[in-house]
Amino acid sequence: MKHFLLNKLIKKIFINHKLSTKHAKICSDALINAELAGAPSHGLSRLKMYCDRINKKLINPKPKIKIKKISQSISCIDANNSIGFVAADLAVKTAIKNAKKTGIGLVAVKNSGHYGLSGYYVEQAVKKNLIAMLFTNAPPAVAPHGASKSLFGTNPICFGTPTGSKVPFILDTSISMINRGKIRVAAKEGKKIPEGVALDKSGKPTTDPKKALEGVQLPIAGFRGSGLAWMVDILSGVFTGGNHAGRVKDPFTDFSAPQNIGHLFFVMKPNLFVGNSFNSRIKDNIKTIKKLPKIKSIKEILYPGQNKFNRYINNLKKEIHIPKDVLEDLKNLNAF
Amino acid sequence: MKHFLLNKLIKKIFINHKLSTKHAKICSDALINAELAGAPSHGLSRLKMYCDRINKKLINPKPKIKIKKISQSISCIDANNSIGFVAADLAVKTAIKNAKKTGIGLVAVKNSGHYGLSGYYVEQAVKKNLIAMLFTNAPPAVAPHGASKSLFGTNPICFGTPTGSKVPFILDTSISMINRGKIRVAAKEGKKIPEGVALDKSGKPTTDPKKALEGVQLPIAGFRGSGLAWMVDILSGVFTGGNHAGRVKDPFTDFSAPQNIGHLFFVMKPNLFVGNSFNSRIKDNIKTIKKLPKIKSIKEILYPGQNKFNRYINNLKKEIHIPKDVLEDLKNLNAF
Repeated sequence: MKHFLLNKLIKKIFINHKLSTKHAKICSDALINAELAGAPSHGLSRLKMYCDRINKKLINPKPKIKIKKISQSISCIDANNSIGFVAADLAVKTAIKNAKKTGIGLVAVKNSGHYGLSGYYVEQAVKKNLIAMLFTNAPPAVAPHGASKSLFGTNPICFGTPTGSKVPFILDTSISMINRGKIRVAAKEGKKIPEGVALDKSGKPTTDPKKALEGVQLPIAGFRGSGLAWMVDILSGVFTGGNHAGRVKDPFTDFSAPQNIGHLFFVMKPNLFVGNSFNSRIKDNIKTIKKLPKIKSIKEILYPGQNKFNRYINNLKKEIHIPKDVLEDLKNLNAF
Repeated sequence: MKHFLLNKLIKKIFINHKLSTKHAKICSDALINAELAGAPSHGLSRLKMYCDRINKKLINPKPKIKIKKISQSISCIDANNSIGFVAADLAVKTAIKNAKKTGIGLVAVKNSGHYGLSGYYVEQAVKKNLIAMLFTNAPPAVAPHGASKSLFGTNPICFGTPTGSKVPFILDTSISMINRGKIRVAAKEGKKIPEGVALDKSGKPTTDPKKALEGVQLPIAGFRGSGLAWMVDILSGVFTGGNHAGRVKDPFTDFSAPQNIGHLFFVMKPNLFVGNSFNSRIKDNIKTIKKLPKIKSIKEILYPGQNKFNRYINNLKKEIHIPKDVLEDLKNLNAF
């Protein structure tokens, strides 16, 4: 289906679930963006889950979001269990405003939920010619180093910067060897996951996505990745007032309470220290790295975000593929 | 030798190399701290290198360091090719001051040099009950994903937070599978390095530290680690005005110019968003994670920084071991 038609359908579904037109648009835009960016694990496959959580009053469709201004640079948002997209959209816009005023914007969010792709919000700041960092925690998926039980989420670290070209530098990396959404998609599609990325619940390596979902995802680089995940849990959970230490609920399977996810946004003006030369500096940086001799299997050295940008541009012209089960979800949600 | 006696010797050496008494103390304290923390790769083994660079006028022993105040929160330091310890010490103190005043301190440093352990500076902020993040770049050691040549440094990501106990949480992780200093120490001591952490100059895996130093270190987690290294290069180099894109000189082998390393410090008040409950929140976080079931080989789940803290306390009572070649260095530097 054409992306703009699908967007309309999804927006309608959210409106039917009592979201305001404005909030419904924020949500449908984010989900369609994930599909276009080639990340279906963060797209339509989650629509039913969001609606289920709204129906069960775990996501508040009419949130009273409070923004507390701590200084010209620092703001604190209590999202009142809004859908994550709405809280994150408001947060990045607030951080952008603060950064434009003072050079740096720091915004913490609590009582939020899963917001899709971190890169989507960081890109908003980058499009305004700003540098951004974003941390969020997530439901237990990764075992801390030394533990035999999951506790950390895949806790992405996201960083973006203008590049002086139309393709932004967006690093959006989970600290897990594999994205949980990808395991979920593999499970739905009956595909295997790579070796060395997950253990089953008895602690044995597995390539079966269903067993991996019941088991433990492995952090990147052992104690280093585990430490980075812990850092993200502290920054986005302990520091913001959100849930932490493994208490963020799995949105698909745990309907006992709202998620209360925390997010932390840093946004900065790129010209703070080097003035107008930032553009030429970042261009030079990227050009120099791209010119390096390459290993045999590689045609071009890409910076983070380039692949996704290219996929996005290509997908804009194509129909969005709707898998069978998602089509079923859409029918059940009275999309047609 | 007792650490305080060794500290005096080293201080004298730096004073003999024209550093002020105050700056010499900053340097000797940092080197002794690395030895006590169990990181000799960042300790005495680098003393001769620093002195060589001073003698060759690549480190300025009497720097005119400029601090430019951009706002109450943001400062920019031109270190005038000072020894890295002095620039980083001033930077973290400035960031602490800014954070105490406004809630957040952001300090960029350019024209600096190798400053030893990132954790040492982050710890200074944590001891003042502040949260800190620190990024710095380093000489080429790690190949960008897809490249067959080193360009990124081991580019550490460092994060610290108060824990409500006397042992701070200090994550200080390079994005390389192995610390370059450790390879250097292994080479000096004729030991092997682990498998899977480095390639020789022809691109073959090697456990020979000398071949690894001529070759390429591997980033953690392939493109994820490569992306994190690139992020650190942008934050600490492109953004600050420091060298970047592989132009930071190797301090041991390249005497053609000063290093012009850049550093970027973020310091924040932990109570910004959760008030006085931060202490109970972080204690709860750590306690919950420590209580998880453990894998068989592990006695206790440790948070980042605990191991180093314990080594430090134990080493305080012991003599610092001086390897033969370092003893030779000390003699040549007229320490005795």
